[in-house]
Amino acid sequence: MARTTAMSGFPELMPDQRIVELDVIETLRRIFELHGFASVETRAVEPLEQLLSKGETSKEVYVLRRLHDSATDAGIGLHFDLTVPFARYVLENAGRLEFPFRRYQVQKVWRGERPQEGRYREFTQADIDIVGHGELPFHHDVEVALVMAEAMAALPVPAMRLQVNNRRLIQGFYAGIGAADVDAVMRVVDKLDKLPIDAVAALLVEDAGLTEQQAEQCLALAGIRSTDTSFVEQVRALGVRHELLDQGLDELAAVVDGCRSVNGERVTVEADLRIARGLDYYTGTVFETVMEGYESLGSICSGGRYDALASDGRTTYPGVGISLGLSRMLVPLLASGHLSASRPVPSAVLVALVSEESRAVSTAVAQALRRRGIPAEVASSAQKFGKQIRYAERRRIPYVWFPPSDGGTGQVKDIRSGDQVDADPDTWQPPVEDLRPRVVSTSSTAPDRRNDNEEQHP
Amino acid sequence: MARTTAMSGFPELMPDQRIVELDVIETLRRIFELHGFASVETRAVEPLEQLLSKGETSKEVYVLRRLHDSATDAGIGLHFDLTVPFARYVLENAGRLEFPFRRYQVQKVWRGERPQEGRYREFTQADIDIVGHGELPFHHDVEVALVMAEAMAALPVPAMRLQVNNRRLIQGFYAGIGAADVDAVMRVVDKLDKLPIDAVAALLVEDAGLTEQQAEQCLALAGIRSTDTSFVEQVRALGVRHELLDQGLDELAAVVDGCRSVNGERVTVEADLRIARGLDYYTGTVFETVMEGYESLGSICSGGRYDALASDGRTTYPGVGISLGLSRMLVPLLASGHLSASRPVPSAVLVALVSEESRAVSTAVAQALRRRGIPAEVASSAQKFGKQIRYAERRRIPYVWFPPSDGGTGQVKDIRSGDQVDADPDTWQPPVEDLRPRVVSTSSTAPDRRNDNEEQHP
Repeated sequence: MARTTAMSGFPELMPDQRIVELDVIETLRRIFELHGFASVETRAVEPLEQLLSKGETSKEVYVLRRLHDSATDAGIGLHFDLTVPFARYVLENAGRLEFPFRRYQVQKVWRGERPQEGRYREFTQADIDIVGHGELPFHHDVEVALVMAEAMAALPVPAMRLQVNNRRLIQGFYAGIGAADVDAVMRVVDKLDKLPIDAVAALLVEDAGLTEQQAEQCLALAGIRSTDTSFVEQVRALGVRHELLDQGLDELAAVVDGCRSVNGERVTVEADLRIARGLDYYTGTVFETVMEGYESLGSICSGGRYDALASDGRTTYPGVGISLGLSRMLVPLLASGHLSASRPVPSAVLVALVSEESRAVSTAVAQALRRRGIPAEVASSAQKFGKQIRYAERRRIPYVWFPPSDGGTGQVKDIRSGDQVDADPDTWQPPVEDLRPRVVSTSSTAPDRRNDNEEQHP
Repeated sequence: MARTTAMSGFPELMPDQRIVELDVIETLRRIFELHGFASVETRAVEPLEQLLSKGETSKEVYVLRRLHDSATDAGIGLHFDLTVPFARYVLENAGRLEFPFRRYQVQKVWRGERPQEGRYREFTQADIDIVGHGELPFHHDVEVALVMAEAMAALPVPAMRLQVNNRRLIQGFYAGIGAADVDAVMRVVDKLDKLPIDAVAALLVEDAGLTEQQAEQCLALAGIRSTDTSFVEQVRALGVRHELLDQGLDELAAVVDGCRSVNGERVTVEADLRIARGLDYYTGTVFETVMEGYESLGSICSGGRYDALASDGRTTYPGVGISLGLSRMLVPLLASGHLSASRPVPSAVLVALVSEESRAVSTAVAQALRRRGIPAEVASSAQKFGKQIRYAERRRIPYVWFPPSDGGTGQVKDIRSGDQVDADPDTWQPPVEDLRPRVVSTSSTAPDRRNDNEEQHP
């Protein structure tokens, strides 16, 4: 096998980085499960006609064929998100699921697009969705926002800003000012991220057929944001009236109000009336999330309400969900060193080896430690103790155990302090923070991950 | 989206089955990490020339192309095992890894082969490997056998029989009896699984060029098995002498002896001199595993020693590893109902809803429970309590919480016994076995999973 190089767009982690990723996934799982979400994993492939039913993503699909069947595609492709497979899973298993059905799904997805900052060809997403049979009460919109905000607040990452809006609100507003083509207005307003406000104002007149005054009102709406329900008054002050607008305002106020308990240093939940989300299937609440200091990555966590997540012609399954871009969030933090692990191996103890003949003695010490949940490895060869200690240092293993050489007691050395004491492998216990690798964050506002785990995941 | 049907060869689990799979993966991780193995995840794709460097698997590869680039393949395919990607990962990151490097990898792999019992097109493997830089002492062969045997013993599955042999032993034996083509003999002996012993004896003469007496000796060797080191004497009694044979006997005896501590009801480690493993790259120890009562699935867990897991031309990286076929093991046990979960949702408590207006009261109860690690969900709508209880019953959620309707205390009902008592969400605690869904096994010899977790994974 020749020397190889990394493939662009397919990020791979070093072992210490993988420890961080696993820790983050464990935290997400813990919080999703506390809220009653069940894990689902779907196959990596879907029939092409399923994947291409929404035209706009068709460019990005990887199609499969079997090597020795070069003439024809296998008719299947790798999934590009977790929503399409979940909708299919719900239809396929509707008779065996209980609704409303809460599921989380942490899995890789693939897109054949050109790799760039925050965009990969293979990446991991963590989705939560709640899906109903025929109907799904609105309060579940509040629930998914709260659950994801709580989950993000527990992660060792920079502060997150979860921005919420409501499609009914903006559609009602545009209709209320007399816009003829509501969708065209939405498409233009969606460009506020990329274009200066003057350019957007001009496009609203030219492309969306608004008067200058109407355009001004649209931009005034898009400028409103608040972390409490005061946005309602600001919208009312614009003097527009429409039934859909009223419903949208009520819903958005309920989401912002329902997330009050998580609003804080780690996560801000705010109404942001600029958010529209391009995808047609969102029908009410919409979410986007920016990570502070990493705004150029775009939205880290997005989603919304779809009145028809899936339908088999007879029954419609409405849903509301939100998808965290785990790779998009973590890979830059790992690459920049913002996040790392206290050591690249699980081992808390290296059991030294006196001689190859006495390996059984060292192995017995390691097994005694493992029986009590202390990860341990035995030195690979009976080098001088100084070399064995340096081996532990290179792996940042905090303790080296010197087994008894003559039937006496052994000794354990904390190689950071140099302290060395007599110890019995059946009773010795390291401090809990040394037991497993810790996630180390350079951000002072990150929560203390270990204590959190100790307390909540018995 | 039209009604869909399951795709043959791509098994998907229902939520209660997925709980079992996650529990099994957690147990494997816990034990691998106790032994100092670090988690690695590699990308799903490899360059085709990497995947096809071992000709025999070329039939099975799924090749990728981007949808809008129909003329050319992307030059990449889905990995069909975790060994090829790991070897590539080691070469790519050799300068940043510490050797010997212990890694575990739990991931999906894909093969385009025809689906049949125990064979899927997408399935999950759990691999452990130890890889050295230039050299890797033999005792690591004992280590991987011990770690995987310990892991299998902790799983809620039927008893496992880990069968070990040594390529040096059989090659030395064949050379010692004067076989001209040792590999040909090995290929024929490997057919003992499929052909009657007489047919194999005939083939040894016809195809492998042995005399009848030599063939008899080969079959005598293949018939030897023992769960202790008594096999050594049985081989010696056949009167064959060869240097490689001696080395192989010593190594095999060391593996069987080193695994004494795990030999028991759940796992048997035995020398079985019939095992050869077809793959050319194994050079010493080889492993296969059958699950009792499921012998027709073939080997559940296989591997061995390869003197050149990877090489970049200057440095060779020897390795020893073993790969557990997680899907092959679990899917039949889940399909037959041998394994299931005590409930399909994480929720231990359903908090009932008095009226939609008092949702905040129910949500506050649920949040108080979650803060103390008790998974809870709030009823989706304020139906009659009888209907809310039946909703919990259908999900097998053990407790329903009735929030205070007038500022008094709430009550919690165990819906299995019907017992209902006053309770405070800030102090009430369910029995630990109700906290999370339990894995239920119909096999009486399965270990008690919950206690195991409590003790070892703080």
